[in-house]
Amino acid sequence: MTDLTITDVRLTPILVADPPLLNTQGLHQPYTPRLIVEVVTADGVAGVGETYGDAKYLELARPFAERLIGRQVADLNGLFTLADEVAVDDSRVQNQVDVGGLRGVQTADKLRLSVVSGFEVACLDALGKALGQPVHALLGGKLRDSVEYSAYLFYKYADHPAGIASEKDDWGAALDPAGVVEQARLFNERYGFESFKLKGGCFAPDEEIAAVRALAEAFPGRPLRLDPNGAWSVETSLKVADELRDVLEYLEDPALGTPAMAEVAARAGVPLATNMCVTTFAEIKEAFTTGAVQVVLSDHHYWGGLRNTQQLAAICRTFGVGISMHSNTHLGISLAAMTHVASTVPNLHHACDSHYPWQSEDVLTERLTFEGGRVAVSDAPGLGVELDRDKVELLHQRWLDDAFAGLRDRDDAAAMRVLDPEWVTPAVPRW
Amino acid sequence: MTDLTITDVRLTPILVADPPLLNTQGLHQPYTPRLIVEVVTADGVAGVGETYGDAKYLELARPFAERLIGRQVADLNGLFTLADEVAVDDSRVQNQVDVGGLRGVQTADKLRLSVVSGFEVACLDALGKALGQPVHALLGGKLRDSVEYSAYLFYKYADHPAGIASEKDDWGAALDPAGVVEQARLFNERYGFESFKLKGGCFAPDEEIAAVRALAEAFPGRPLRLDPNGAWSVETSLKVADELRDVLEYLEDPALGTPAMAEVAARAGVPLATNMCVTTFAEIKEAFTTGAVQVVLSDHHYWGGLRNTQQLAAICRTFGVGISMHSNTHLGISLAAMTHVASTVPNLHHACDSHYPWQSEDVLTERLTFEGGRVAVSDAPGLGVELDRDKVELLHQRWLDDAFAGLRDRDDAAAMRVLDPEWVTPAVPRW
Repeated sequence: MTDLTITDVRLTPILVADPPLLNTQGLHQPYTPRLIVEVVTADGVAGVGETYGDAKYLELARPFAERLIGRQVADLNGLFTLADEVAVDDSRVQNQVDVGGLRGVQTADKLRLSVVSGFEVACLDALGKALGQPVHALLGGKLRDSVEYSAYLFYKYADHPAGIASEKDDWGAALDPAGVVEQARLFNERYGFESFKLKGGCFAPDEEIAAVRALAEAFPGRPLRLDPNGAWSVETSLKVADELRDVLEYLEDPALGTPAMAEVAARAGVPLATNMCVTTFAEIKEAFTTGAVQVVLSDHHYWGGLRNTQQLAAICRTFGVGISMHSNTHLGISLAAMTHVASTVPNLHHACDSHYPWQSEDVLTERLTFEGGRVAVSDAPGLGVELDRDKVELLHQRWLDDAFAGLRDRDDAAAMRVLDPEWVTPAVPRW
Repeated sequence: MTDLTITDVRLTPILVADPPLLNTQGLHQPYTPRLIVEVVTADGVAGVGETYGDAKYLELARPFAERLIGRQVADLNGLFTLADEVAVDDSRVQNQVDVGGLRGVQTADKLRLSVVSGFEVACLDALGKALGQPVHALLGGKLRDSVEYSAYLFYKYADHPAGIASEKDDWGAALDPAGVVEQARLFNERYGFESFKLKGGCFAPDEEIAAVRALAEAFPGRPLRLDPNGAWSVETSLKVADELRDVLEYLEDPALGTPAMAEVAARAGVPLATNMCVTTFAEIKEAFTTGAVQVVLSDHHYWGGLRNTQQLAAICRTFGVGISMHSNTHLGISLAAMTHVASTVPNLHHACDSHYPWQSEDVLTERLTFEGGRVAVSDAPGLGVELDRDKVELLHQRWLDDAFAGLRDRDDAAAMRVLDPEWVTPAVPRW
């Protein structure tokens, strides 16, 4: 009989290279923190997960990990009870939009769930390996053999600011419509993506409208999305919607907060998607009853894991709201996790976002690959990925290195201040 | 490696004894049809499930069973895709409240889901046995070691009408407040139930109010429920709510349909529960946005199984609506299934209903037992129950027996007509 008792939990904070990508808050720092979670059973089966690696997540993950020892790896519902027992330091809760990569309004519950997600995925991976089942089978079985992703386009600089340590990337700059189209061509060529999302909120709306128009010309008929991360007023949102209605699959988080989104949704004539105004179960009721959003982009990290993502999908299905998946800077473990859960969601009618092509570094022995914009759903036991201990150690050493200590919390405004010492996170609405 | 391919599916319709219990539509017939589902894997592992056994369910179950062969027993999400492929005979769909035991409004989807549930439970049982895991572990793990049930009190005759075949029961008659209290005492004595539900809608509301008052006197402080199955007008519902407000845990389906329930809920001052106005995912949006119900009583048969019940629970949690479980005439397989899923639902704050004590016959080698009103959650692989083939065969022979052919569809009005040839299903509202 398989012994599913958890006997060891390993937490490894790492720093991974991130290109100089722009968003409305600023610029990605050259390295971003992630936390690698390993859960080991009495039989020596190890499962892996990953989640945000900023200090506030790490502080919660440590006491959580201690409490896991002696529990069953199949005891996934119990993870949430356990999370409630871990106290969140109030000073870590901002109750406003997070400065580190636009994760929506941050609350104590959301912090806890983001931590739980790393452990839930690790437990599912271990459970799948122990029982000889792929993770999708533990989630009720895949409904498709591959999952479609979209190209996640960013305005970006060619290089990080001179004088600070960074890894070189080969994407070049993209600071105008031509640059965005060129980036899209590369994405299509390298990975076969057939739908395109542009991270906006960086330049005046007219410039971003022009970029989306250029994409529509270069890729006629392809699904396009624009996401300014809540940078616009209701009026600006409506203006952009009006100008791009004929080419947008959806407009993502044009304005901040449910009431503003509801106002835009009522008049925009284009569906609104979100990963900012509906990021927790507590935010659903208001948004769904006011018609504020037409597509929820689930980030399994925020939502507390893969099974919660399935529950979110069921809620969306019940209320006639679409579902797809959001992606923030992450590695192959999370891409594999996203792919497993996405394969089980019946009402998945939009390609999922993926940041993964931007991450030149990973902790796996083999990177996941996109073919025709799709990731194949693995039928191997667990997630179907293998940790490369040397790579983990290398990235962990970087995290330990005092020279990089300032990067242990992701802060896009701080990165921008390296270029522009006067930069402060723009007030919202920015336009 | 375990081979989880389904190689055989066995369907066995049976007739089980049912006492002469009253409800607003009439009387339980002396025997009620159930369908026993067995799913067998390539390795010879068999899982069991049960669902409604009326002809219209059986007609759907047969083509569904054929389609299952060759599929994986872990492919639970796929059961719903498969169900969509099985055509429902329109003449079987009433699009009104079912005459057979008040299962809410009947639609083609609900018929399909009621059939799927029997297969889903059988697949979970087989999967659990094959992987050495209890069903609750396949549902994310139990959050409690036992599940509380309530005593399900019925107005009843001592015996079925003379002259027709029936099994004798030892509960005696209960046709007035004293009889109801005596029945409750027996339930408490035999099984330790600490909360009580009275199936009402049978006598004038004042008589049923008196019965609940008598229960409140006999069992002070215990949670009490009254369920007239939608037999009352809004005014009558409000009158009953007003008179019983101080002793009711909730009032169940006082009036029929979401608009009427919403009207009652707005003014009743007592929570409303339902297993009639919210019985499918399609009915949730209207009911939850109009505040029509405060507690949904999930019947895993209607809802399409245990995993759908978990999704329903998540939706209820998200919208601040309570959840508990409904029970119609069923055997130990379904009680075990209910117990597994109920053990995994965090927001289960009301004792579940159970008809099981009324069923003197079962198809298991060992009956499930209530202690202190609770059923222990099994940690054995699968559901933790074992089919008694001799009993199944006995009850199947009864189903095959031409003398009982008239009972293959449950029809409470027909049973009442044996006593009162003029009886027709009462128009609603009855009072």
